[in-house]
Amino acid sequence: MDDINFAVLGTGGIGRRTLEVSEHKDHLTPVAACDRHGVAVDHEGLDVDELLAATEANIASDGGTATRGGTDGGVKQSGQNAGVAASVQAEPTETPIDDVIDESDAIDAVLVALPNFEHDFIPRVADRFAAAGYEGVLVDVLKRSRVIDMLDDRTDRFEESGITFVCGAGATPGLLTGAAALAAQSFVEIDEVEIWWGVGLKSGYEDNRGTVREDVAHLDGYTIEDAREMSDAEIETVIDEHDGVIEFEDMEHADDVLLERAGVCDAEDVTVGGILDVTSDEKPTTTTVSVTGTTFDGETGTNTFELDDATSMEANVNGPALGYLKAGVRRNRAGEYGVFGPADLMPGF
Amino acid sequence: MDDINFAVLGTGGIGRRTLEVSEHKDHLTPVAACDRHGVAVDHEGLDVDELLAATEANIASDGGTATRGGTDGGVKQSGQNAGVAASVQAEPTETPIDDVIDESDAIDAVLVALPNFEHDFIPRVADRFAAAGYEGVLVDVLKRSRVIDMLDDRTDRFEESGITFVCGAGATPGLLTGAAALAAQSFVEIDEVEIWWGVGLKSGYEDNRGTVREDVAHLDGYTIEDAREMSDAEIETVIDEHDGVIEFEDMEHADDVLLERAGVCDAEDVTVGGILDVTSDEKPTTTTVSVTGTTFDGETGTNTFELDDATSMEANVNGPALGYLKAGVRRNRAGEYGVFGPADLMPGF
Repeated sequence: MDDINFAVLGTGGIGRRTLEVSEHKDHLTPVAACDRHGVAVDHEGLDVDELLAATEANIASDGGTATRGGTDGGVKQSGQNAGVAASVQAEPTETPIDDVIDESDAIDAVLVALPNFEHDFIPRVADRFAAAGYEGVLVDVLKRSRVIDMLDDRTDRFEESGITFVCGAGATPGLLTGAAALAAQSFVEIDEVEIWWGVGLKSGYEDNRGTVREDVAHLDGYTIEDAREMSDAEIETVIDEHDGVIEFEDMEHADDVLLERAGVCDAEDVTVGGILDVTSDEKPTTTTVSVTGTTFDGETGTNTFELDDATSMEANVNGPALGYLKAGVRRNRAGEYGVFGPADLMPGF
Repeated sequence: MDDINFAVLGTGGIGRRTLEVSEHKDHLTPVAACDRHGVAVDHEGLDVDELLAATEANIASDGGTATRGGTDGGVKQSGQNAGVAASVQAEPTETPIDDVIDESDAIDAVLVALPNFEHDFIPRVADRFAAAGYEGVLVDVLKRSRVIDMLDDRTDRFEESGITFVCGAGATPGLLTGAAALAAQSFVEIDEVEIWWGVGLKSGYEDNRGTVREDVAHLDGYTIEDAREMSDAEIETVIDEHDGVIEFEDMEHADDVLLERAGVCDAEDVTVGGILDVTSDEKPTTTTVSVTGTTFDGETGTNTFELDDATSMEANVNGPALGYLKAGVRRNRAGEYGVFGPADLMPGF
């Protein structure tokens, strides 16, 4: 594979850790990164260490879409905690995404590491790239099933522009969706896909408040709108009510529609749940994908994929995000445009 | 994905069962099948049930390359056990592969389900397709590491012709190689990939004598040439000496070079072993892929992929073979030619 220049939109936990992981990867050069107040571009390659140090407190709990300009729990506005703008490589800007789009002729892939509290937020970001005639890859790590349809609605637009959009390319959906698609290969009929995750997020909590907020929206009695409007204190209260350990059932995770659109099974046969523990860095339960199906010779069985408890959520999101990004670039360079889920980048079912 | 017309070269256990599995798959139409004495072609789609009934005793222990024309353990020469030629859809032929090549303008993909006792046998079959200007996919389920280099040497030839060659696309290498590539995504550095398989092959033994023969070649003290020259009785003697349960260590399985060429790890960090039990249909051990690596945040862990003991070797070879075939067709239609391993069809590492 040839070299890949990529950009990161958003420098919260996922954006920053992806930049860090890319330092370990061959052929990947980060050339642009932005948050809501700043943009850093260097087509020779960003100095990731410097940028990470500058953005270390860039926790962006609200994903940059709720309390713009606030300082409580958002990006610090001054000193070394001012986000991307604090980097010596960066410029302050009012139009960070447009600034990256302006440079996109020389960018092969863009990781959209922005929380998606408004369901059409990431689709609308993609629209802006398409409107600018971007030819390259967009990758996101979104979770919500309903967003996939919004992206599929844009297939023609992506094809006209030359965009290969890889959606749901984190851990779940992402790594685990791909594992389900692969585990399904033993069977001719899939009865059930169960995705069960464990996340221990004590020391990583500050860095992943956006993710936790989005998880809260999956709890009974809460909507995505509720979670977006809640203050950080209200989020803390919910967590405290669960003594810091929250179990989720039947989450709206896009694994279901991503497996269905790849022809693996019906969306309704996919269940996603898990346990989040913010009191410990140990995982409260082992992350497992179980695929139950029937073989051509009439046997029923369950293939399983298990992540070691020692692998952090960050490792399981950021490695796959870059892995799918590479797969997307390969597709893009072969002239394949449109919307791809993780399971579309696996052997066909 | 659009409809795919495919052919099968060889109607031993793998070829026949792949035809059977394809009946459960959308968009896959088998249009040609051959063994050494017969060829069946129907561009509207073969009658698989009839063909399977006709070839049921087509055990081809020697893979069609050793005792041509013999009747001991090879294809029966008359009646309903005469192989493909016994099918009402087929014609007898002296040149079965050439006959399929003659039809290949209308064939999207060819599964090469021939044993590869001569290491260059499958590469030479590919040469014949390339010489005829075939534009499409070739898929094999070969095992030996050294064959991959022979295929890579032909990359230019494949690209000139328009061939996408997907190699090692069975269970191992194949499904398990892909699982290893996916499991590696949590890590930035891979320490070790261990592939361990269990096969219970009592009722399926007659149908898979070629596979067993090839396995014997992996035993200490035996070479591939030994295994090819041995009579069926000599093979039986080896099996009896092990009381029907043979354990294999450090097998030369192409998983190693396929993972290395995909950039996942060094070939020497991959080990393949397993247990074959011809006295039972139960698996003697659980087939498992273990990938041990280091995460970006410095943790060491082992991700695992396990196949249910109820899934047969056949299910785990034939599903993936067709899955990778579909992935290969997609690549081919996008204009991507050359040699692809299973891990090349996964997210990049």
